[in-house]
Amino acid sequence: MSAPPLPDDVAALVARPNPAVITSNRPDGQPVSVATWYLLEGDGRILVNMDEGRRRLEYLRRDPRVSLTVLAADDWYTHVSLQGRVAELVDDPDLVDIDRLSNHYGAGAYSNRTNKRVSARIVIERWHGWGAAKNRS
Amino acid sequence: MSAPPLPDDVAALVARPNPAVITSNRPDGQPVSVATWYLLEGDGRILVNMDEGRRRLEYLRRDPRVSLTVLAADDWYTHVSLQGRVAELVDDPDLVDIDRLSNHYGAGAYSNRTNKRVSARIVIERWHGWGAAKNRS
Repeated sequence: MSAPPLPDDVAALVARPNPAVITSNRPDGQPVSVATWYLLEGDGRILVNMDEGRRRLEYLRRDPRVSLTVLAADDWYTHVSLQGRVAELVDDPDLVDIDRLSNHYGAGAYSNRTNKRVSARIVIERWHGWGAAKNRS
Repeated sequence: MSAPPLPDDVAALVARPNPAVITSNRPDGQPVSVATWYLLEGDGRILVNMDEGRRRLEYLRRDPRVSLTVLAADDWYTHVSLQGRVAELVDDPDLVDIDRLSNHYGAGAYSNRTNKRVSARIVIERWHGWGAAKNRS
């Protein structure tokens, strides 16, 4: 495990629209993982966005610790795992963030304009890479 | 979330050599996720296999609860998440299990014949699917 910032080549990999899985903890400590869109922000934080009705939102309000594993889109032998915590949970009333995510993944504006959405910004505390993203420390 | 057994079409999806991410908890409760090979066994349990030196093994001995998210190889909009616990941790001295996993993923016999390996068998307690694997309950 290494501390941030991510080396340039790892940041370049993470910046691409890769498949990813995020895990949070249920109140009893059971880890719960799910596939997710994510976006690496210019400040080094990770944006994810959830439907307001997602139970994951309750979990994150109670325990902000998360782990995100990013699989390289072309070859998942290369993957990067980021551990950190949700530093900010904010409503996304105009769907700005979910549209950014949806556009990043090539899906255009987000299709569901009815449900309320919430954005989470994750501060990376540790990361580990494999394959082409292997830690060099 | 639904209880097992998995419906036939979901089991058929999970039985394929898909990209997957497993999460366990560090002793302080921080979730730690990583890409993994896995294999759905005939008895409904999930096999994973680790290098003996992996810290994850310590974590699993302390807290056997895991979450596994399986992404459909052809379109990760379809994904299945399984929550459960490691029911068995056994040495794999003849590399039988890691070879089964490596063959399942099309990599032939496992390349590293030196390092010791340990197998974990996970009992699925809850599952949730999206896309073509969406829960129908």
